[in-house]
Amino acid sequence: MASIDAVLLALDNNRPAALDRLFELLAIPSISTDAAYAPQCERAADWLAKELTGLGFDAAVHPTAGRPMVLGHAKAAHRDAPHVLFYGHYDVQPVDPLELWNTDPFKPELQEGRRIVARGASDDKGQLMTFVEACRAFRETGGLPCEITVLFEGEEESGSPSLPAFVAANRDALKADLALVCDTGMWDAETPSITTMLRGLVGEEVVVKAADRDLHSGMFGGAAANPIHVLARILADLHDGEGRVALAGFYDGVEELPADVAEQWRALPFDEAEFLHGVGLSVPAGERGRSVLEKVWSRPTAEVNGITGGYGGPGFKTVLPAQASAKVSFRLVGRQDPAKVRAAFQSFVRERLPADCTAEFLPHGASPALQLPFSSEALTRARRALHAEWGKEPVMAGSGGSIPIVGTFKQDLKMDAMMIGFALDDDRVHSPNEKYELTSFHKGARSWARVLDALAK
Amino acid sequence: MASIDAVLLALDNNRPAALDRLFELLAIPSISTDAAYAPQCERAADWLAKELTGLGFDAAVHPTAGRPMVLGHAKAAHRDAPHVLFYGHYDVQPVDPLELWNTDPFKPELQEGRRIVARGASDDKGQLMTFVEACRAFRETGGLPCEITVLFEGEEESGSPSLPAFVAANRDALKADLALVCDTGMWDAETPSITTMLRGLVGEEVVVKAADRDLHSGMFGGAAANPIHVLARILADLHDGEGRVALAGFYDGVEELPADVAEQWRALPFDEAEFLHGVGLSVPAGERGRSVLEKVWSRPTAEVNGITGGYGGPGFKTVLPAQASAKVSFRLVGRQDPAKVRAAFQSFVRERLPADCTAEFLPHGASPALQLPFSSEALTRARRALHAEWGKEPVMAGSGGSIPIVGTFKQDLKMDAMMIGFALDDDRVHSPNEKYELTSFHKGARSWARVLDALAK
Repeated sequence: MASIDAVLLALDNNRPAALDRLFELLAIPSISTDAAYAPQCERAADWLAKELTGLGFDAAVHPTAGRPMVLGHAKAAHRDAPHVLFYGHYDVQPVDPLELWNTDPFKPELQEGRRIVARGASDDKGQLMTFVEACRAFRETGGLPCEITVLFEGEEESGSPSLPAFVAANRDALKADLALVCDTGMWDAETPSITTMLRGLVGEEVVVKAADRDLHSGMFGGAAANPIHVLARILADLHDGEGRVALAGFYDGVEELPADVAEQWRALPFDEAEFLHGVGLSVPAGERGRSVLEKVWSRPTAEVNGITGGYGGPGFKTVLPAQASAKVSFRLVGRQDPAKVRAAFQSFVRERLPADCTAEFLPHGASPALQLPFSSEALTRARRALHAEWGKEPVMAGSGGSIPIVGTFKQDLKMDAMMIGFALDDDRVHSPNEKYELTSFHKGARSWARVLDALAK
Repeated sequence: MASIDAVLLALDNNRPAALDRLFELLAIPSISTDAAYAPQCERAADWLAKELTGLGFDAAVHPTAGRPMVLGHAKAAHRDAPHVLFYGHYDVQPVDPLELWNTDPFKPELQEGRRIVARGASDDKGQLMTFVEACRAFRETGGLPCEITVLFEGEEESGSPSLPAFVAANRDALKADLALVCDTGMWDAETPSITTMLRGLVGEEVVVKAADRDLHSGMFGGAAANPIHVLARILADLHDGEGRVALAGFYDGVEELPADVAEQWRALPFDEAEFLHGVGLSVPAGERGRSVLEKVWSRPTAEVNGITGGYGGPGFKTVLPAQASAKVSFRLVGRQDPAKVRAAFQSFVRERLPADCTAEFLPHGASPALQLPFSSEALTRARRALHAEWGKEPVMAGSGGSIPIVGTFKQDLKMDAMMIGFALDDDRVHSPNEKYELTSFHKGARSWARVLDALAK
């Protein structure tokens, strides 16, 4: 196997051809949500399978009830190499409003010698091709450092309806030591990022009931229990004065960040005011003594997402309602147990019910947090590899919401995921004039080469 | 003017004829809500005007946009007599479901020698005729002890749409020292009752706003203000640990009951458990240390009648909503000022708004409590008069809700009202087989004779 320097040199030498290949893929209008473009999705899948085959992968297009999957597999140059599963998606968002595009979204252009402009340039064709180009460079210089399975999906932009069943039906083919996902962004144009944490979610609806019918507040007001009051008091208790969630045992399994990550986050040039200003706010709410980044990346939360009780129409009605309900969600981190959190919430509610009131609960999904351990050897190696490429320590990022594919990999294949991507905040993903920086494309490929090399050592 | 004994004797002697007259009125199907019965309403109005004219009243039928009013006036036998306005209504509820009636609702019957059965027997034809018969007895024995204006309405069962304008247009004709209303009930078959208190009402809607759009709780949850939490905390604070309303100055103008009334209420055989059991409850909520009767008759309240925020549809949505709102009503007693209560609530909300949250308020009506002062000489006399007739102290009742006609008299004519009626809880008002006890009819007429006599002394 060649040295990483030889691989990087090959990548640099291949740049014009790599861009031509990306443009070929970008020219295929593989919009997944519109059935009229189904043949174009098949074309894109075929194109990718052919690419992989050309790189020595055992690759094929697999039909689904929707758009096809591309699945490829290649052995490493050496035995005992680690096995990784790489995920990307070849489908793209629709292009309307078309009149806001300055160029044809499916006639890719390199603008000002530095921006690749086309639908899918950043999300996700440009990104997945960084990995393909890294594989090519290894092939040209002696072989792959890792055993690699590649999964390219064609329905990510329309909710991945076929994915869970496909994963369940192809466990043996997909199972690897670690999943690599290239569908996220950099911290900024100079700073790479690895997303290692995705918060989990418990959804629960609570219905508080009192009288067996709606009452007239003139006749009963002041003497009969009002479920809206009861519910309001319970929800008001849900957070303590410090903004912490007051459920018993809620923070079991929640760990503080490692010192180096905490220090990194503190040092990040993140403008909390600007983040909030974008949605009309100015002061962070929530847990006292935590930064906004901590709050949305690494801290668990309780949020009421909906509340309903009594009369909600126009005007007024002096009703004392028989019931009131709330939909509450808990974002989980670390090793918080969704079932325990749900049970703790139910106890919390029941302990606060006054006489004559009952509570009913409706579950609305539960998923644990996903976290690639900070102590993971793969993470340490990837951090070092990205640092070598970018000259800066990569940001250990979290994601406040879930990314379904990562949950599927974890739940069905018991496989952790490391998310590394090179998109920038200004890439206009899902919008007109989507672009991908040429540096993202070139240094992204070099990054993957370094990561694969590092994982194999 | 004859002695009250002569008047009561005349009433007793007139009983068969009085019942015949009531049956004539009950036989007229004066259903106000159904336009098909409009001619019958006119017949009832004509019949009443003719009755009053026969008793020496200057009486006439006054058309309105809906059913006509009957207005009559008669001077007292002596100068310097007090002037009272008597109110009743001649319209009745519809009779369906007709198949549940055991007799024709408009063929009045005396059943078992003691129950007058017909639509309107109790609500309100039987009741208003108690007053008319008392007037007749005075006429036959020397003249009226009070100057009397009579107002019979024909739209009470359909919301009194014409009443406010009619009162406003006839202020001089209607203004008197005191209004007497006969449309309420007895405490029980042996115990008379005077309703002297009607709670007032302030309705207010509050909308708490935070971000300028709905947010994704994965992206912002834990860092952005959630208006549902803010609203829940504010509403949870609305009552203190003793169930008292926590607004500043809320109890200004709220007085404790006079000792004799408080003692009377304590002694009343009112089964709180049974009252609550009827609607599926068992334990009184609300202000600690107060009886249920106090709570619904004489204590002010704050009740949330509706709450809405975020996602309320089926399933779940992890939204962090831009706003949440509640409809809150305050029942007022004594001299509580509706404007001050509204302002106190608005301040209460504003003081509790965290950074970035605003509140908007929408008013939904305001009416002060109505209370005939316990110290009123007229009330003292009426209590004595009813005691003389029934051998028991009348219950000083309150009403948790409002009675619009009394508010109109107070607001437009600056006139207090005393509500005395002889209906019983089992009269099946608004239901099939409505009835009025013969004792209610006879002793009701005797009661009015004693009350009018007492007011004039």
